[in-house]
Amino acid sequence: MKDIQSQQDHRRIGIEKVGVKEISYPITVLDKAHHHQRTVATVNMSVNLPHHFKGTHMSRFIEILNRFHGNINLRSFHLILEEMKEKLEAQQAHMEVEFPYFLQKATSSKTGLLREYSCKMHGTYDSEDDLTLEFRVPIAPPGVEQTGEGLPESLGHWGNADICVRFRHFIWIEDLIQVVEEVTSHDLKWSTAQPKPNRHPLSVEQLAKDLGQRLNDHPAISWFSVTVENLSEGFSTFATIEGPQ
Amino acid sequence: MKDIQSQQDHRRIGIEKVGVKEISYPITVLDKAHHHQRTVATVNMSVNLPHHFKGTHMSRFIEILNRFHGNINLRSFHLILEEMKEKLEAQQAHMEVEFPYFLQKATSSKTGLLREYSCKMHGTYDSEDDLTLEFRVPIAPPGVEQTGEGLPESLGHWGNADICVRFRHFIWIEDLIQVVEEVTSHDLKWSTAQPKPNRHPLSVEQLAKDLGQRLNDHPAISWFSVTVENLSEGFSTFATIEGPQ
Amino acid sequence: MKDIQSQQDHRRIGIEKVGVKEISYPITVLDKAHHHQRTVATVNMSVNLPHHFKGTHMSRFIEILNRFHGNINLRSFHLILEEMKEKLEAQQAHMEVEFPYFLQKATSSKTGLLREYSCKMHGTYDSEDDLTLEFRVPIAPPGVEQTGEGLPESLGHWGNADICVRFRHFIWIEDLIQVVEEVTSHDLKWSTAQPKPNRHPLSVEQLAKDLGQRLNDHPAISWFSVTVENLSEGFSTFATIEGPQ
Amino acid sequence: MKDIQSQQDHRRIGIEKVGVKEISYPITVLDKAHHHQRTVATVNMSVNLPHHFKGTHMSRFIEILNRFHGNINLRSFHLILEEMKEKLEAQQAHMEVEFPYFLQKATSSKTGLLREYSCKMHGTYDSEDDLTLEFRVPIAPPGVEQTGEGLPESLGHWGNADICVRFRHFIWIEDLIQVVEEVTSHDLKWSTAQPKPNRHPLSVEQLAKDLGQRLNDHPAISWFSVTVENLSEGFSTFATIEGPQ
Repeated sequence: MKDIQSQQDHRRIGIEKVGVKEISYPITVLDKAHHHQRTVATVNMSVNLPHHFKGTHMSRFIEILNRFHGNINLRSFHLILEEMKEKLEAQQAHMEVEFPYFLQKATSSKTGLLREYSCKMHGTYDSEDDLTLEFRVPIAPPGVEQTGEGLPESLGHWGNADICVRFRHFIWIEDLIQVVEEVTSHDLKWSTAQPKPNRHPLSVEQLAKDLGQRLNDHPAISWFSVTVENLSEGFSTFATIEGPQ
Repeated sequence: MKDIQSQQDHRRIGIEKVGVKEISYPITVLDKAHHHQRTVATVNMSVNLPHHFKGTHMSRFIEILNRFHGNINLRSFHLILEEMKEKLEAQQAHMEVEFPYFLQKATSSKTGLLREYSCKMHGTYDSEDDLTLEFRVPIAPPGVEQTGEGLPESLGHWGNADICVRFRHFIWIEDLIQVVEEVTSHDLKWSTAQPKPNRHPLSVEQLAKDLGQRLNDHPAISWFSVTVENLSEGFSTFATIEGPQ
Repeated sequence: MKDIQSQQDHRRIGIEKVGVKEISYPITVLDKAHHHQRTVATVNMSVNLPHHFKGTHMSRFIEILNRFHGNINLRSFHLILEEMKEKLEAQQAHMEVEFPYFLQKATSSKTGLLREYSCKMHGTYDSEDDLTLEFRVPIAPPGVEQTGEGLPESLGHWGNADICVRFRHFIWIEDLIQVVEEVTSHDLKWSTAQPKPNRHPLSVEQLAKDLGQRLNDHPAISWFSVTVENLSEGFSTFATIEGPQ
Repeated sequence: MKDIQSQQDHRRIGIEKVGVKEISYPITVLDKAHHHQRTVATVNMSVNLPHHFKGTHMSRFIEILNRFHGNINLRSFHLILEEMKEKLEAQQAHMEVEFPYFLQKATSSKTGLLREYSCKMHGTYDSEDDLTLEFRVPIAPPGVEQTGEGLPESLGHWGNADICVRFRHFIWIEDLIQVVEEVTSHDLKWSTAQPKPNRHPLSVEQLAKDLGQRLNDHPAISWFSVTVENLSEGFSTFATIEGPQ
């Protein structure tokens, strides 16, 4: 068998990106109400065009992640990316951290159910860093209030709003989720309140526009993308909008 | 290192079941409207307490599946199980075949959308065989009809009915699905038609009972299980019923 | 439209089980090394044959879960089941809690990687309770040790051992996982150490038997089930064994 | 409640993309050996910046898909995109079709196992169209040949090669998969053949470079991207390369 390993120096073919992915890792994120929240993340880390990269360097990704003890926030995200870039002598460092985030929903104080929001932070560090936050807000029509105790019977799962933002300055995830839920519940109420015969149900375009308008006007947000999907029988319809516009 | 392999004959520890699983395989199933329907299945095959079983016999599962060219129906299911039991000298043979089944929905003739129903056939053969069919019927409230062309805007995904049956005699999956959809659409209409202030939304218990009643009375069904789930924000509620009762 | 709701009292069709499922919930479990470990679980809760059950009672499942603040262990599991049975006036209560559990692997102290093990506790309470613990141990052949720093290059993912046990008395999950990993790494080493031409690779039957033998002899375990699967191109082979034998 | 619908014309906020997604649909693709192969796809369709778009137009996506009867190939892909652009009066049309593709593996002629390859076609049509084909080739070390009948015992799942290409001219998927498998099996053999004490296992960088070299030299390929991942305990390592270089 020809030794193909020894030929590698003469080739023009160069690796563009190396990294580790699908690391399941317990992390701590900031929480407006309780200071900290512990959750479990899936982490991807990679670097672009490292000089003199060797396979044995793969362990450095894990070492860097461990050094930060899973404390993931806007500040530590930058420090982790900086250390990746330096330790791996790379031109660019990337990290994605995806995790469920739990909030006590104000209106469900009686049953006290925690609501789960899927979140994903994505950062790239080159000469300066670029950080985005994605989160999903499930859209459910308001169920009929039961008299007495109890969970209202659900009208099901209308769809989801997937929001991605870049920040001008710090803002709590909780406050962003509230902004989104104010718009979705307003639009759902409007849709239900219309008289039956001419009733015009809520469309993905309408809700995407209303969410886009609100995020466009928000002082803390420098860029946004909104995708609203409506679940249907066997497929989804969706509309996407980006801004500022 | 101690050779643990040579000790194995002296042990009382015996294997109970061996098999292959997660085989992705193109299959052909019977279709009331078009005679045959081609789809893609996930197949699990196993046997209980084989005599003199050796690992090399694992290939026989695949050989048997190939011999039937993926023609999966009530009759071939029995023949495959019989051959597994015989060729692997086993006391019992099991097979599970899970696949999406597509139906042209009558009411959506204009757009012609095919609706997907998840199906699963499960068979066990000992001295006689036992075959069950499972299928999932998605429950979606009827959207408001648009004037002119078009898909009605969806009110979202209320939930699912998961049905599992044993047969007294042959019945088309199509006819079973229709039986289930008549009950779910009747109940959804009843729920929507109630006057707003005292409106009592559809409950999982109510729908499970109505489906149970209908399957209980069906001449072709010797046993059934129904689970109705209602999707909600972040979790589901469900009710299960079995029969005959 | 005929009011089918008012007919329900005259029917013989009775609900067998009601509950909530797929609740995503942050929980705390016991941890041998750090006393407590925070993770995120998926929780299912249900009751059999409740007397006078009403849909509004669905909220009680959530209330009970919240009262225990997500502290899930053998003792609280029993108390939660007891409270479900009592508050919902049921004959039987069930709960399933599935979660990733993280352990610092001794041999990877340098890179300090936490290894994730999928765990699932399942409890049923009738007149007495029955609790099982399931966990998955990934099986990976030992990679070649690098000189100097670094992660050994992986030889890939051989397969998994899925263990389910009932206990005679308390034992740490950590200790159970160690018992399993001693057997799997011994068998993998044996397989690799054999001379090449007659080399007999590790089979799922062999590893299932060796694990069964070890669990059969363990004083804390009153019942076990072991399924070993070997990942292959496009499907898995598996062997299952139960005990005591 | 304020009627927010009537305000929409005065806003600057415009929708960028609308479409349907997650449509499960039976399709027919070209097959070198059997002329046609039937499989089941997941389809996403969308358009950019449609003029005068109304929600009712969502049904047109489904109508167009139905008109082509699920015949998906390079030529029909272009026609579908063209019709989407025209019927929806859009600037740009997009479609993604993801499906399992089955090949009879030459070396497994005895057991005749079909191997599954995940494929994804993605097309965009603006003034001209741009079509890419993605596919995943699982990488499994060659198992030890059994004497006599049978499946070789598997050494597990080393990892995957994810390939994405743009074409200069037509080439069968079968031939592309063969090109990739020649490289992966050569490299795996090289890795296994090395003497034990100094054995240098196969790295993701090495395999990505060798695949990149081969695709770089292929006359039918105008652009490619290769990601090789090696499955490990609890995470993957990966390397990515793009070309031409």
